[in-house]
Amino acid sequence: MNFKIDQQRLNRELDTLASFSADPAPAVTRVVFSEQDLAARAWIKERFREAGLTMRDDAVGNTFARWAGANPDLPAVGTGSHIDAIPHAGKFDGTVGVLGSLEAIRALQAAGFKPRRSIELVLFTAEEPTRFGIGCLGSRVISGSLTPAADVQLREASAGPEGHGQTLESVRKSAGFTGSLDSALLPQNYFSAFIELHIEQGSILESEGVSVGLVSDIAAPAAFHIVIEGEGGHAGARLMPGRKDALCAAAEIILAVERSVLATGATDTVGTVGICQVHPGAMNSIPSRVQLSLDLRDTDAARRDAALEQIHNACGEIASRRRVAIKLETINADAPAQSSPEIVKALKEACDAEAVSYRTMVSRAYHDTLFMARLAPVAMMFIPCKGGVSHRPDEYSSPEQIHQGVKVLARVLAGLSAI
Amino acid sequence: MNFKIDQQRLNRELDTLASFSADPAPAVTRVVFSEQDLAARAWIKERFREAGLTMRDDAVGNTFARWAGANPDLPAVGTGSHIDAIPHAGKFDGTVGVLGSLEAIRALQAAGFKPRRSIELVLFTAEEPTRFGIGCLGSRVISGSLTPAADVQLREASAGPEGHGQTLESVRKSAGFTGSLDSALLPQNYFSAFIELHIEQGSILESEGVSVGLVSDIAAPAAFHIVIEGEGGHAGARLMPGRKDALCAAAEIILAVERSVLATGATDTVGTVGICQVHPGAMNSIPSRVQLSLDLRDTDAARRDAALEQIHNACGEIASRRRVAIKLETINADAPAQSSPEIVKALKEACDAEAVSYRTMVSRAYHDTLFMARLAPVAMMFIPCKGGVSHRPDEYSSPEQIHQGVKVLARVLAGLSAI
Repeated sequence: MNFKIDQQRLNRELDTLASFSADPAPAVTRVVFSEQDLAARAWIKERFREAGLTMRDDAVGNTFARWAGANPDLPAVGTGSHIDAIPHAGKFDGTVGVLGSLEAIRALQAAGFKPRRSIELVLFTAEEPTRFGIGCLGSRVISGSLTPAADVQLREASAGPEGHGQTLESVRKSAGFTGSLDSALLPQNYFSAFIELHIEQGSILESEGVSVGLVSDIAAPAAFHIVIEGEGGHAGARLMPGRKDALCAAAEIILAVERSVLATGATDTVGTVGICQVHPGAMNSIPSRVQLSLDLRDTDAARRDAALEQIHNACGEIASRRRVAIKLETINADAPAQSSPEIVKALKEACDAEAVSYRTMVSRAYHDTLFMARLAPVAMMFIPCKGGVSHRPDEYSSPEQIHQGVKVLARVLAGLSAI
Repeated sequence: MNFKIDQQRLNRELDTLASFSADPAPAVTRVVFSEQDLAARAWIKERFREAGLTMRDDAVGNTFARWAGANPDLPAVGTGSHIDAIPHAGKFDGTVGVLGSLEAIRALQAAGFKPRRSIELVLFTAEEPTRFGIGCLGSRVISGSLTPAADVQLREASAGPEGHGQTLESVRKSAGFTGSLDSALLPQNYFSAFIELHIEQGSILESEGVSVGLVSDIAAPAAFHIVIEGEGGHAGARLMPGRKDALCAAAEIILAVERSVLATGATDTVGTVGICQVHPGAMNSIPSRVQLSLDLRDTDAARRDAALEQIHNACGEIASRRRVAIKLETINADAPAQSSPEIVKALKEACDAEAVSYRTMVSRAYHDTLFMARLAPVAMMFIPCKGGVSHRPDEYSSPEQIHQGVKVLARVLAGLSAI
């Protein structure tokens, strides 16, 4: 079968999508359910509509855009990704998987291809944890990975250590996504296969000069809040020996995270403290309370848990030595996922057919496919991004690199939808 | 001379002043030139007016309330303090010195005392560095300790590492304080003496059961910004060895500050990192930039500079080892001040006359008197505060403790204004 990816159209659409941003270009800031996110969704749905796709939104704001197959009752072939972006991020993370899938579908349509199974493009809600403190919200919900109570319990994380943000319940309803989260749960036979195209967010493909990475495993991510309660006071008058400075304790924890992660000796273990909120946060006031975030990932759940255990022990030691209270609260600690060998085989064949170089690799980043693996056989394909840079305004994949990925995706969607 | 402090009125006025707050009680948040600060100033000026004091405001917003003496051309006896409060502070820091001075004046008036020299109560603008990043703004300006260019250069600090706040120029003019800052400069013979009553913000007086602390030296404070520029990226995909995590570097600096301060071996050396702003500040993003504040104080300027030198060296080592850029910028590094032995002697005699116990001590906190010492002979008197706690909602001095301080202040103002 011959088909042609309209790369220029795809480039234009990636540029347009990037313009829906709360920060000026080249930064992209598009927090889920923000004004910019809702405007971007409206624009992208117009593109789905132009392509003749049938759409529905679920209660958490996932959008499903379906190209009906000749046998629409068969489980569909799924593809897609997310369009939300953390503050000061770039324009390729997630978006390549959404607009690339759309372009793949349009290329197959233009080539006269008629799928037997339906092909369904999923735009996932809140892959980024920015707003609600938990990643992959949309895919968690449809795969039954959130308890129903989460609907009520989840709140915006951005209100900081003191205030309380709005609930997910209230925010999603204000954005127009109503109904109970239970209604969004998908049955196990909904998809026959799910494939996500994404930028690598690492530098392996670029450094090896390989066009496509076929993901064998998705690393097991875990997220935590660490709250340190010390004692405040005046920065001049309270002498050093009597202090219980919460930020000094936090500094030791930040370094203990780094040390514990390096101590596993495995390159697959990564740990990051990305948030450090200090109360009261004044130049002449001793910090009385600090809230840290901790993001810990590994391809091996046991090894990740061992690193966490070390961090936990360090917190205990620091709390006792510095006479502060330290609370480590788990936000989520998910199990790793494996790709389906059959889909990976189909991807390899598609790469060969399109003369695109590939290698198998591990995904260290968090992706919706991690949760889709609980619903269906899955695989992910990566394309290179410059310098491995992601979540920054200078995130970049070239039109050529995107093109290689999208044409392999189109071919594999055609193949999987025909069987 | 017999006079009587109306402690109940003073208690009520302290309570009323505390109600001008941007945060609910018991917290007091009253940032200079905020709505709450301006309302508090209006209320307090009404009290000055009731006491028959003649008022003027200067270009930076200091208020001078004068009880004219029999010989009004003689240099006046000055007293006073500040009413601005950092976020989530308490109700006694500064306010005891302002309302206590007012009560002392009213007590002397009621007793029929007629001063020879005028007694002038000063309400200083922005003793706290919250808004403009520099403490003792009002006393710096009137003592010529700010270059005239500062009027144009000073900006709000609260806009964070990226944005720019409003200029002092614009904020003070919006608040109604116009004219050039030069016009606020006071001549050397304006005051014959200046005395500030303040809570100790430490626990020495309380633990020793002493009613009044007579300050011999005010510690030399210095303030700095430290900006760390590393490299951001995705918390999952960027492996540990390639990272230039700005927050890990910041953590080492925070601990180096603590270590360098402890290394002087002197209890008089204190150092605090009170602000830690992380960019971009997302759970799954490696921190690319961190801004820290550093507050460093000592009674010995040379020893303070030696600690700073150690911190500076640590920053250099950390920058080189972690391959990040670290910039240490001085906001201010002021010289210490000594009290006038004559005024301290007068204070001791007043304590003896009122049967109030006292000891001499060092002021470790920053006070407007530090800058008033450049204009006139000065002294400070401290009263105990519970547990040494200050800059917190639970800051507390009892009515009895305040009463002891105010009656000594009244007696010494009477004495100094008679000579």
